Amino acid sequence: MSTGLDLAAVRDASPRELRLRMRSGAWRAPTAGLAPGYAQANLVVVPRAIAYDFLVFCQRNPKPCPLIDVTEPGSPEPSLAAPGADLRTDLPRYRVYRQGRLVAEEVEITRYWRDDLVAFLLGCSFTFEAAMQRAGLPVRHIEDGRNVAMYVTALACRPAGALHGPMVVSMRPVPAPDVPRAVLVTSRYPRAHGAPVHVGDPAAIGVRDLSRPDFGDPPRIAPGDVPVFWACGVTPQAVGMAAGVELMITHAPGHMFITDLRDEDLAAG
Amino acid sequence: MSTGLDLAAVRDASPRELRLRMRSGAWRAPTAGLAPGYAQANLVVVPRAIAYDFLVFCQRNPKPCPLIDVTEPGSPEPSLAAPGADLRTDLPRYRVYRQGRLVAEEVEITRYWRDDLVAFLLGCSFTFEAAMQRAGLPVRHIEDGRNVAMYVTALACRPAGALHGPMVVSMRPVPAPDVPRAVLVTSRYPRAHGAPVHVGDPAAIGVRDLSRPDFGDPPRIAPGDVPVFWACGVTPQAVGMAAGVELMITHAPGHMFITDLRDEDLAAG
Repeated sequence: MSTGLDLAAVRDASPRELRLRMRSGAWRAPTAGLAPGYAQANLVVVPRAIAYDFLVFCQRNPKPCPLIDVTEPGSPEPSLAAPGADLRTDLPRYRVYRQGRLVAEEVEITRYWRDDLVAFLLGCSFTFEAAMQRAGLPVRHIEDGRNVAMYVTALACRPAGALHGPMVVSMRPVPAPDVPRAVLVTSRYPRAHGAPVHVGDPAAIGVRDLSRPDFGDPPRIAPGDVPVFWACGVTPQAVGMAAGVELMITHAPGHMFITDLRDEDLAAG
Repeated sequence: MSTGLDLAAVRDASPRELRLRMRSGAWRAPTAGLAPGYAQANLVVVPRAIAYDFLVFCQRNPKPCPLIDVTEPGSPEPSLAAPGADLRTDLPRYRVYRQGRLVAEEVEITRYWRDDLVAFLLGCSFTFEAAMQRAGLPVRHIEDGRNVAMYVTALACRPAGALHGPMVVSMRPVPAPDVPRAVLVTSRYPRAHGAPVHVGDPAAIGVRDLSRPDFGDPPRIAPGDVPVFWACGVTPQAVGMAAGVELMITHAPGHMFITDLRDEDLAAG
């Protein structure tokens, strides 16, 4: 069974075709580089009992939590982002948390599904990284085939009901003269984290050592690079874990949901 | 008691000072032109029982329903948009609906307040109209001291739970050569309705007669003007009325809530 080595053969398949490959188990690898031009999304599934707090949390913290779709309770179909898709089967890999603790990694979640579950899709940095590349900006971790470096900051999210916690950020080293362009290009996509939340001094946001990220791989920082920080979609997962939500299901890192929306659909306007 | 004739004397007061004048009953007039540079907001108050559906509705329809703050249930304080303010007293005039029908117009709503009420603040067209004026674009209804013309369209909002209905739009006549600039300038403010939803032919969105708006005043359309349509904050009120929500309280038309947020806080980024 393929685990993604046939990237070249499938990368230009349509989002729907790719989702069906995932549904059949034929694709279980990370989704970076698939369906260029289409927006990929973070998945967070929680019970209806906490979904209101989660919605308000997203509203109050739109940079880390840019909501692009919410399902009706019990429905696995994201009717706005990908009509006809099934969020229980159409991602390559999932993580299951109970009371805030990781209890399983799964390739489909049908047996966990319940009538009271609500799925949230949130914009993903792949959208603005593609825009950076189109603008000629280096994206070091992509050049190196690694994961982006992510850090838990001292920046507090605005709380909502039972949910609270620090903002998680991703960091991309940007050559100093390119920093304005990086800000401008990414600001066009507020529903994919938008403009950076911080430029420069990591200590100012409570990041002590760039070489030791909390998630992802250590970054390569070239001479003359400035560390630039964007709000990260890991934030809502971290907040759900901290709150000890009874049941939470997310995508596995890097194994995103491929929507029918164009990257441009996540642009401002 | 003043009903607003002393606009010149108070227009440059701070948002907080203006809210205190409203709290004391010293200002009960429309808020257009007050506190230039600060964002004004639509108010919608509903019981917690329907607030989840309302939140999802706003998420699915961000152009007509650009949410800028949500209170904790029972709290009248918009802690993000105006810490310390009291939404029960700090607007000049309110409308009260029961089962979807207008039952009262009030200058404060303390006696209606309940522990289960949730208040939503939504961005308002004043923010992008100010930007249009700064860009040298004519805004005909402001020039004429009238209300903007608003129309119920054939465009369906995306439903959410019990809530559904048509999109309401406002129309501003724009000289044809200025249409691109009007799109660009207003697109900068996605949390104040953003770019237009339609340009040109009214019939294409189900508007039969521009001279007979559903709300507001008939427009003045100069020779060479093109009708340009923006999503309108009346939409969520209309949807709440259509759903026959048990209790809904809104601002009275033109009598908005003045926030501490700058217009620029509603810009994309």
